[in-house]
Amino acid sequence: MAEDYDIDGFYHGLIEHELILPVGVAGAFGRGAVFEDVIDRFNDRVSQLARDDGAETRTFPPVMARKVIERNNYLESFPHLCGTVFSFFGKEAQAREMAQQALNGEPWKQHLDVTDLCLTPAICYPLYPTLGGTLPPGGRLYSLLGWAYRHEPSPEPTRMQSFRMREFVRVGAAQDVLAWRDMWLQRGLTLLQSLGLQARSDVAADPFFGRGGRMMATNQREQRLKFEILVPVISREDPTAVCSFNFHQEHFGGKWDIRTADGAVANTACLGFGLERIAMALFKTHGFDVAGWPREVRQLLWP
Amino acid sequence: MAEDYDIDGFYHGLIEHELILPVGVAGAFGRGAVFEDVIDRFNDRVSQLARDDGAETRTFPPVMARKVIERNNYLESFPHLCGTVFSFFGKEAQAREMAQQALNGEPWKQHLDVTDLCLTPAICYPLYPTLGGTLPPGGRLYSLLGWAYRHEPSPEPTRMQSFRMREFVRVGAAQDVLAWRDMWLQRGLTLLQSLGLQARSDVAADPFFGRGGRMMATNQREQRLKFEILVPVISREDPTAVCSFNFHQEHFGGKWDIRTADGAVANTACLGFGLERIAMALFKTHGFDVAGWPREVRQLLWP
Repeated sequence: MAEDYDIDGFYHGLIEHELILPVGVAGAFGRGAVFEDVIDRFNDRVSQLARDDGAETRTFPPVMARKVIERNNYLESFPHLCGTVFSFFGKEAQAREMAQQALNGEPWKQHLDVTDLCLTPAICYPLYPTLGGTLPPGGRLYSLLGWAYRHEPSPEPTRMQSFRMREFVRVGAAQDVLAWRDMWLQRGLTLLQSLGLQARSDVAADPFFGRGGRMMATNQREQRLKFEILVPVISREDPTAVCSFNFHQEHFGGKWDIRTADGAVANTACLGFGLERIAMALFKTHGFDVAGWPREVRQLLWP
Repeated sequence: MAEDYDIDGFYHGLIEHELILPVGVAGAFGRGAVFEDVIDRFNDRVSQLARDDGAETRTFPPVMARKVIERNNYLESFPHLCGTVFSFFGKEAQAREMAQQALNGEPWKQHLDVTDLCLTPAICYPLYPTLGGTLPPGGRLYSLLGWAYRHEPSPEPTRMQSFRMREFVRVGAAQDVLAWRDMWLQRGLTLLQSLGLQARSDVAADPFFGRGGRMMATNQREQRLKFEILVPVISREDPTAVCSFNFHQEHFGGKWDIRTADGAVANTACLGFGLERIAMALFKTHGFDVAGWPREVRQLLWP
């Protein structure tokens, strides 16, 4: 199967094997029991690799403060991907009108107004504002798992509107942050290759919006600020990013006044495993039936 | 501590002990490592209780099809709680204007339009549309864990905008569904009491909107369609619902054409443990430091 990159066939195979469940909106499907088990087991392997690193766990909801999105300049880079929560603030007569319109299949959006929340676009975003102040010597390390939202509906199964990332975030001096990023780049590659995936790393750029975005992407590549680990899932020529490593330099440290023990603006880096994409890479590579996966892969995931 | 119901003091205690992390929006706080560990351990106990029930796991994202919300009449009952995802569909010049307005702290909502997604208000909602057709004899049982959204910002810590539910959903003949609901009502009570919580069950009603909602609530109570397990967390007189049991009769079965093996419209019931609320009930009852919790409670959670 691994040599056949029929996107539609792969999507329908995932559905036929109850690995994903269509819900009528692209990129928002449900996940079946086996799909979830693979995600859990892979996430356990990541935790196992990180067990002696001393990361502190933080969990943030799938929604976050709109003000943080605004202050992070997210809309400058990714206006097209951002989701904002709207809700109803009216009284009874208006509520009845809205409910009736919804039931009739007529528009009802005109009754809604903006709330204080956006959908979390990157699961480390809510962390930085909580870190303002002075770090202990050596900085800090965090472990996160959460749901990210990106407004990019697509029939292509690896391009989801809502998906989970297992992330780590390192905060401290630039050389410590970079050494940690490099260590994990190798760790991530080794882990994914040990699971039989044709994984390789590369310099990468974010999908910045518009013409101005092309310059930002070029700059990001030239400074080697972003790396990805890529695995063929829906194409051999354009392998899918299943893991990304981002060095933010002083961007978040400056924005949220995070300082190292010696008073300098802190550097930050994050890395994230795209859990659904990794599960899909495993199903693509080893087949839809986990019982038929190579013994060494099964032993790593179900020890 | 258990006898003192100072809401503000409890909220600040949770923050001081890094159990929750404020993010600038009420009810959308982050969760610290110990808080998460308590949730994980409690959830493990629930899984342990259910291990021989044969539930199938399904996982749905924190967003779901707006059309399903519309067809479920959610807006008739809870127009005030619903969150709808808006996004940007424009081109570059408009994106630049929006980003600049956001950066200046000016309104930018006028650039957004409605998407096909709402925030998932109850984590079993996305399941029912996937169940259309004929059930096997005896019906089906599902296990779900996910994030729910309710637009009710509040400084009261147990009233969250975004929170997790561990749910089970039973689909089948009315008598099977009801017997299962009754079995779990006792199971839930026994579990929560074994953890030292002053838990009791009661008939309940949903927070339906407006005057029309009062009639719906009365009807729901009279038919005994909803039960809750209550534990004092922020008040002795008004204990907090930490677990709810809902018998939907043929509502979802009829709406999504779910049939029992003998061709009748299926009945459904769901039950959900409010994971954050249960963690808060444990911290309120046993103190902010888990090391000081009663030995029998610790042994149950960390066996």
